[in-house]
Amino acid sequence: MDSERTYTLTASCPDRVGIVSRVSSFFSTHSGWILETSLHAQPPDDGEGVGRYYMRVEIRADSLPFDLDELRRRFRPVAEELNMEWKFADSAQKKRLVILVSQQEHCLYDLLARWQAKELDVDIPCVISNHETFRGFVEWHGIPFHHVPVGANDKEAAYAEVRRLFEEARGDVMVLARYMQILPVDLCAAYPGRIINIHHSFLPSFVGARPYHQAWVKGVKLIGATCHYVTADLDQGPIIEQDVIRIDHTDTVADMVRYGKDIEKTVLARGLHYHLEDRVLVHGTKTIVFR
Amino acid sequence: MDSERTYTLTASCPDRVGIVSRVSSFFSTHSGWILETSLHAQPPDDGEGVGRYYMRVEIRADSLPFDLDELRRRFRPVAEELNMEWKFADSAQKKRLVILVSQQEHCLYDLLARWQAKELDVDIPCVISNHETFRGFVEWHGIPFHHVPVGANDKEAAYAEVRRLFEEARGDVMVLARYMQILPVDLCAAYPGRIINIHHSFLPSFVGARPYHQAWVKGVKLIGATCHYVTADLDQGPIIEQDVIRIDHTDTVADMVRYGKDIEKTVLARGLHYHLEDRVLVHGTKTIVFR
Amino acid sequence: MDSERTYTLTASCPDRVGIVSRVSSFFSTHSGWILETSLHAQPPDDGEGVGRYYMRVEIRADSLPFDLDELRRRFRPVAEELNMEWKFADSAQKKRLVILVSQQEHCLYDLLARWQAKELDVDIPCVISNHETFRGFVEWHGIPFHHVPVGANDKEAAYAEVRRLFEEARGDVMVLARYMQILPVDLCAAYPGRIINIHHSFLPSFVGARPYHQAWVKGVKLIGATCHYVTADLDQGPIIEQDVIRIDHTDTVADMVRYGKDIEKTVLARGLHYHLEDRVLVHGTKTIVFR
Amino acid sequence: MDSERTYTLTASCPDRVGIVSRVSSFFSTHSGWILETSLHAQPPDDGEGVGRYYMRVEIRADSLPFDLDELRRRFRPVAEELNMEWKFADSAQKKRLVILVSQQEHCLYDLLARWQAKELDVDIPCVISNHETFRGFVEWHGIPFHHVPVGANDKEAAYAEVRRLFEEARGDVMVLARYMQILPVDLCAAYPGRIINIHHSFLPSFVGARPYHQAWVKGVKLIGATCHYVTADLDQGPIIEQDVIRIDHTDTVADMVRYGKDIEKTVLARGLHYHLEDRVLVHGTKTIVFR
Repeated sequence: MDSERTYTLTASCPDRVGIVSRVSSFFSTHSGWILETSLHAQPPDDGEGVGRYYMRVEIRADSLPFDLDELRRRFRPVAEELNMEWKFADSAQKKRLVILVSQQEHCLYDLLARWQAKELDVDIPCVISNHETFRGFVEWHGIPFHHVPVGANDKEAAYAEVRRLFEEARGDVMVLARYMQILPVDLCAAYPGRIINIHHSFLPSFVGARPYHQAWVKGVKLIGATCHYVTADLDQGPIIEQDVIRIDHTDTVADMVRYGKDIEKTVLARGLHYHLEDRVLVHGTKTIVFR
Repeated sequence: MDSERTYTLTASCPDRVGIVSRVSSFFSTHSGWILETSLHAQPPDDGEGVGRYYMRVEIRADSLPFDLDELRRRFRPVAEELNMEWKFADSAQKKRLVILVSQQEHCLYDLLARWQAKELDVDIPCVISNHETFRGFVEWHGIPFHHVPVGANDKEAAYAEVRRLFEEARGDVMVLARYMQILPVDLCAAYPGRIINIHHSFLPSFVGARPYHQAWVKGVKLIGATCHYVTADLDQGPIIEQDVIRIDHTDTVADMVRYGKDIEKTVLARGLHYHLEDRVLVHGTKTIVFR
Repeated sequence: MDSERTYTLTASCPDRVGIVSRVSSFFSTHSGWILETSLHAQPPDDGEGVGRYYMRVEIRADSLPFDLDELRRRFRPVAEELNMEWKFADSAQKKRLVILVSQQEHCLYDLLARWQAKELDVDIPCVISNHETFRGFVEWHGIPFHHVPVGANDKEAAYAEVRRLFEEARGDVMVLARYMQILPVDLCAAYPGRIINIHHSFLPSFVGARPYHQAWVKGVKLIGATCHYVTADLDQGPIIEQDVIRIDHTDTVADMVRYGKDIEKTVLARGLHYHLEDRVLVHGTKTIVFR
Repeated sequence: MDSERTYTLTASCPDRVGIVSRVSSFFSTHSGWILETSLHAQPPDDGEGVGRYYMRVEIRADSLPFDLDELRRRFRPVAEELNMEWKFADSAQKKRLVILVSQQEHCLYDLLARWQAKELDVDIPCVISNHETFRGFVEWHGIPFHHVPVGANDKEAAYAEVRRLFEEARGDVMVLARYMQILPVDLCAAYPGRIINIHHSFLPSFVGARPYHQAWVKGVKLIGATCHYVTADLDQGPIIEQDVIRIDHTDTVADMVRYGKDIEKTVLARGLHYHLEDRVLVHGTKTIVFR
């Protein structure tokens, strides 16, 4: 939460002896002050073969005697030695968040409240919607608003436009803040691990349409929401965060929708926060979240 | 929790004006002291037609000038007028609980601890198991233990024996306290609303075998358990109670099993408690729980 | 959630035989269609003497053959017979909510999002603040904004102005949506059960200033928030709703503030919702909440 | 949960650059296979001065070319260089747990169920109680039971006997599983970080006697339990784990006691589990729990 500049390494590599030692001695050699280290050894799924090692290391930028480019240059041999997938994020470089929304307000209001309070420390270059509903509200915050209607017959053009706007905005992450349209497969594939959705059920229960109605029919005693990365596989992307709330027999579908909104916006905000702080690493169809 | 004798009416009837008035004036005419009244109007599923009205009324036995048989006799015309399904339970008549268990101890220990503390105010005429594992533990509590093995080829005989034991024990309710066998359809059908199971997942997610393993593969962030009435439809009976617990990427399947046990036993105990106090009314495939 | 007009009776009286019968037969005599009935017998605190009976009855307005004035006139003898405190609320008469806020945005944004979505079905005649911070945001929503600074030396005048504005707005309920000033005793006393505060701790833990800092020092593993009626006794008014969230040793005070906001706004919204639907009845220093 | 032998280092030292590097390179030099590493930099309380660094490292025993004594001998210079407090635990060396209990059964049954299932992988050399109540139950499990009555006038002798029994049993940790006596200051002081209590409230709310009654009087909407290390300061020791459960106005004190038991035993089991796996490090009056 404080403002000192940090570089954050997120990386994964095949598990072996000496990974932590190799990485941490790289930083200590350069007097790098590590603020936070998170490590996780993921065993092989079948119990055999080689597991995978995940790490997140947050370093005070001013403790290093060189800049980020030089840090990357010098780290490269270490990463290659360990056969690592890796990247450094710079806290001084605010991430650019593009929000997609339809006609429900709760997630949008919630995100903008957090942004206004600097809790969500991002730039929001634009909000895109298939309805005009929130133009005034968004523009009042000084954020450009783009209306991209999605008709039954011009979906392709509509999503081409969404993609153009995202590129133009140099977006880092796209958040579907109750965007009630299904993104086309090629758009999902273009931004792996960069599109975040909030689904209004406790997945894998109640995939598809009208999950609260499904939950009411089933008579469950808790309902929930799921924040996940969007993949071409609808409602099946890696889960980042989930939560539930208790209901009972007196609750109608409308009540469940109302309660559900509270869970949806909280779970989305929490998942997005983890993502923005580079705390989420994808392992196949699952996530590692270094809370 | 206190020991005064009560009669508890549970009833349902087609919704109309004047139900509460008719029932409550019946009791007040006889100076019946109502300790607790729970009411619920279930709207028609399709929004049309007639809804159904559910109620639970708990009366101090000693406030009425007659006994339970007479109470039933006098209430009958009221019930008929309202076209009611109804019954009275008598707190002086302890319910008889038969426990079925396999080789996992957590639910069994938990139930017997509650029984020993009189929190579970029932008679336990016997415990039935397909293994010998818990004979000593059960018998130490002074409860008869029956070993009924379930072989691949003699299931029919085994379940006939389970049924005979339940009848002989004059069981009111059968609890599957992690009984790892699937009851045959005819046994389920013989005791509707009287067999309670604890399923080790947050249904409807992860039906079938190895739910924790399924949850691990899926990468969910919460796991749960479900207490439900057993019907011929496996894992689909009316849900009485559910709860969840948070897990994360560091948890193995074994960890999830361990955490899950805590939820399982708590959810089973809570659901059973509601059932024993006649707080659960079945409405089709769902329950009304007057907590 | 639906829009049919209802009258809601909330009432309490000394416990005795026949209360429900008397009230429900009054309604059935006039063909009143009861949508929801909630009842609670509060036993005497010392286990002796007479308990108190609480009820909430929601009736379809159009099922009665007369209007609300006539309903009140006819119900009066029943209420007097039972020595009842009572009132009827009319769903067609929207409650008037006045919001007080300082410089934190989360509760204000959350309330206005709910109001904008008609989930919070009230009129908001004005927002009052001791800072100018949210003028633009509030006015954008078409709601008048009053800046009433509270200086060290003119508190009396400031609160006289707050009171004047509340009266002028014909406010029904005043919500302190993270209003960081202590209301004077006489203002609290003027509106019993009509001023709602959100306190940023799980009361009775951490009363007074800087509760998150207190929680951090103490090393608790969960933090919470409390929605309560304001009384002259600071942080001691009847609790309407509470909730908590898990933290751990990695969380700084700033993290706790951030997590806490999510709980604060949710708990406030939930408590306010109960209040607006006349589901909260005060019993001494405690509440009965007919969820 | 699996059975391979591990050594677990828990350590803390003044924060500085290079700690992780120094420790991890020590292990990698000797080909030590690290299964799990947890790290935490605790900033100085006043924001100035030097923080403290905490770590827990779990290594596969068979990956090292020497035994534990040699490991300790070789690690000592590293520890001294870093000015470290440190210890190694050996998973092959089961911890010895002594349970103290009075007349409530829920925590005792729960602990023995977990022990019986090997979830609690400890030796239980004896159970000590100030009542005879559970002798049969404990002895049936093959565990020695000692009745040490605590009279008003012979407390000193009683606690001398408790201490003697704990020493004789070579106890590693003493668990107060609802032991309703206050341990004397000198006994607490003799075993810092080795006596674990379960308190039946969400501390710091409701310290002292009858916390559920206090909670009922206050009208809180959630009740909880706290697992903490015992210090000479009653109910003030470092908190290991807490949890809560929702109650409402219908719940009597007796209901709260019943619900509370479920939280108490779960929170105690969870806290004890962390302790036994050397996941709890004490930092002043607080704990770091490497879950």
